[in-house]
Amino acid sequence: MQTQVVTLKQRPQGLPNSEHFELQSQSLPELADGQLLVKNLWMSVDPYMRGRMIDRKSYIAPFAIGEALEGGAIGEVIASNHSDFAVGDKVSSMLGWRNHFISDGEGLTKVPETGLPLQYFLGIMGMPGMTAWVGLNKIAELKAGDTVFVSAASGAVGSAVCQIAKLQGATVIGSTGSADKVELLKSLGVDKVINYKQVEDLNVALGEAAPNGIDVYFENVGGEHLEAALNHMNDYGRIALCGMIAHYNAMEPQAGPTNLANLIIKKLKIEGFIVFDHWQHYGEFAAQMGQWLAEGKVKSEETVYQGLENAAEAFIGLFSGKNTGKMLVQLNP
Amino acid sequence: MQTQVVTLKQRPQGLPNSEHFELQSQSLPELADGQLLVKNLWMSVDPYMRGRMIDRKSYIAPFAIGEALEGGAIGEVIASNHSDFAVGDKVSSMLGWRNHFISDGEGLTKVPETGLPLQYFLGIMGMPGMTAWVGLNKIAELKAGDTVFVSAASGAVGSAVCQIAKLQGATVIGSTGSADKVELLKSLGVDKVINYKQVEDLNVALGEAAPNGIDVYFENVGGEHLEAALNHMNDYGRIALCGMIAHYNAMEPQAGPTNLANLIIKKLKIEGFIVFDHWQHYGEFAAQMGQWLAEGKVKSEETVYQGLENAAEAFIGLFSGKNTGKMLVQLNP
Repeated sequence: MQTQVVTLKQRPQGLPNSEHFELQSQSLPELADGQLLVKNLWMSVDPYMRGRMIDRKSYIAPFAIGEALEGGAIGEVIASNHSDFAVGDKVSSMLGWRNHFISDGEGLTKVPETGLPLQYFLGIMGMPGMTAWVGLNKIAELKAGDTVFVSAASGAVGSAVCQIAKLQGATVIGSTGSADKVELLKSLGVDKVINYKQVEDLNVALGEAAPNGIDVYFENVGGEHLEAALNHMNDYGRIALCGMIAHYNAMEPQAGPTNLANLIIKKLKIEGFIVFDHWQHYGEFAAQMGQWLAEGKVKSEETVYQGLENAAEAFIGLFSGKNTGKMLVQLNP
Repeated sequence: MQTQVVTLKQRPQGLPNSEHFELQSQSLPELADGQLLVKNLWMSVDPYMRGRMIDRKSYIAPFAIGEALEGGAIGEVIASNHSDFAVGDKVSSMLGWRNHFISDGEGLTKVPETGLPLQYFLGIMGMPGMTAWVGLNKIAELKAGDTVFVSAASGAVGSAVCQIAKLQGATVIGSTGSADKVELLKSLGVDKVINYKQVEDLNVALGEAAPNGIDVYFENVGGEHLEAALNHMNDYGRIALCGMIAHYNAMEPQAGPTNLANLIIKKLKIEGFIVFDHWQHYGEFAAQMGQWLAEGKVKSEETVYQGLENAAEAFIGLFSGKNTGKMLVQLNP
C-alpha cells in the first residue's frame, strides 16, 4: 500500500520553514509474520524536535536528511500478523510524521483503556505531562507553600506545570505571550500571569508578581526569562531546566545571563533533565494525573492541526506561540 | 591599650587598591567582667571578602565604610576575665583585620591541640579545606573513577580540591596561571595541568586534557572556564559552584556562557553553595583531613605576608594570583 511521510529536506539555519520539510509518498510492503500495520490517528510536534534537526551529539540522534522525521504518535492497529497485537488496538510509538507504518512491535506501547481521549497520551497523560510532574517533583523538589515561576506557561508542559503546582499547594506565577493565553492561565487557577510581550521590563514585572521571591523556576524558555528569574530567586531556590526555546533557532551563540553570580550568592541549584531518564516513575504519575483528570481538577489544553500535510506548519508554529497547550496533528481524520 | 585595625575607606569599583583601605589606630578599654583580650597571630584574606565590599543583599552583610573589616583569624588570649578562656588559649574568630580585640567569648572557638601549625585552621583544616571537601562530597557527589576539573587549582580551595579528589580516587585536571604553579600542582599529584594564561584556546586545551570528558567541575573562576567546562562535561555531570573570581571586580555585568544549552542536552546539575551551610559536617571533615595531614598525604600550601600594614596588599594580590595555596597575614610577629 501507499502511505505518506514527512522527511527533513534540509537542516534549518534559524527558524524552520516549509522549505525544510517534504511530504513524500512511500510504499509499504506486505506484512510479514510477526508484523503489524498501524494507522496513525494523532501525532505530536514538540520544541525538542528542533534540536534533532541539528547534526550534533546529544541525548538523542539527529534526524537524517531525506528520512522520515520521528516523534510521539498514537495509532490504531489495522492489520496484524503479531500475536500480541489485535486489529483495533490503540498503540503509542515514536513513529509520528507518517500516516501508516509497519512494526514488529518493538517500541510500541498499548494505550490503556481509560475513557480519556486518545490524544491525552501525547499530552497531559504523556510526555509533556510527565515532564511537568518530573521537573516539579524529582528535579525541583517542590514543597507546598513554594512560589513557582513557569515560563511558556500556556504550552503543553507549562500548562501542566501550572496545574500540578497549584494542586500541590504552590503559589504559581506564569509567563506567556498573548492576552488570550493570559485569560486561559487565569482560568486554570494561576495566581499571577505576566504577558512578557506587553511588559516594559520582564525583570520588574516578575519582581512585582513575586514580592516574596521565587522558590522554584520551571524553565522552558531561557534568555531574558532565566536572567529575570535568577534576580528574584530565594535562597536555596531550585531551577528545573526543561527547555530553552528562545535559543533553539538562534543563528549564533547567544550570551548567557549576566547574573550567574546569584547561583552562589543564593545557593541555587539548576538542573537540566530529560523526562525519559525518569520513565520508571510513569506509573506513579499516570495514576495521580488520571485521578486529577477524572475529578476535573486538571484540564487538558490542546491546539489541533488537521492532516499530515499540515504537520510542518504545526511544528513551525511552536516557535511563534501558535499553540495553546499541547500542539497536535490529527492524522487520517 | 592602643591597637590597629584596617577599615574599608571607600567601596572599590573594579579592582581594589590601597586607596580603598585605611590602617587606623584604635583604643581598647579596660576588660570588664566576662571579657577577654585576644592578640591575633594570623588572619585570612579570601576572595569572598570582595563581595562584602559591595553594598548589596547577600548571604552575609556588606562591610560598612569606616569600620574595621572582618574575616577569619587565629589569636592568643593574653588577658581574661572570662571563666571559659585562660591566658594562652588559642582561639579562632571572624575578627581578623585587627591586631587585638576584646570579646565576651561569643563567636570564638578554641583551636584544638593537634600539633598542626595554628594557621592550618585558616586553610587546609579550616574554611578553604572544608569548602573543598563539601563541594566535592556534598554538592558534586564525587565518585571514585570520576574525572574532576578544578579552576584556580593552586589556590587555597583549589589545592585542597585537587588533593582530596586524588585521595578519593578521581583523575584530576587543574587550571592555573603560572609555570611555578603548574609545577606545584604536578608535585601534588594532579594528573594534568593547564596554564590558562599560556594556552591559545582554553576550550581546546581542556578537550585535550580530558579526552573522556569531565564528570565533576569545581568552579572557582567563572567566565571562560565555565564555558569550556560546559563543552566537555559528560552526561549527568555535576558542577559545584564555589566562586567566580573572574567576575568579582567586573565594572559591568559580564555575559554568561553562550552554551548553557549543554545543561539540558547533558542533563547537568550546577549548584552554588556556601560552606557555612554545611558546618555540621565539620567534625567528619576535620577527622579525615587531620588523618591525611598526619600521614603526609595532604600538603598545606601557603603564601604569607607579614604585618597588618600589609594585609590590604595581600588581599589585593588574590586577584592577580599572587598566592599559591592559602593567602595569610601573620600579625604581631
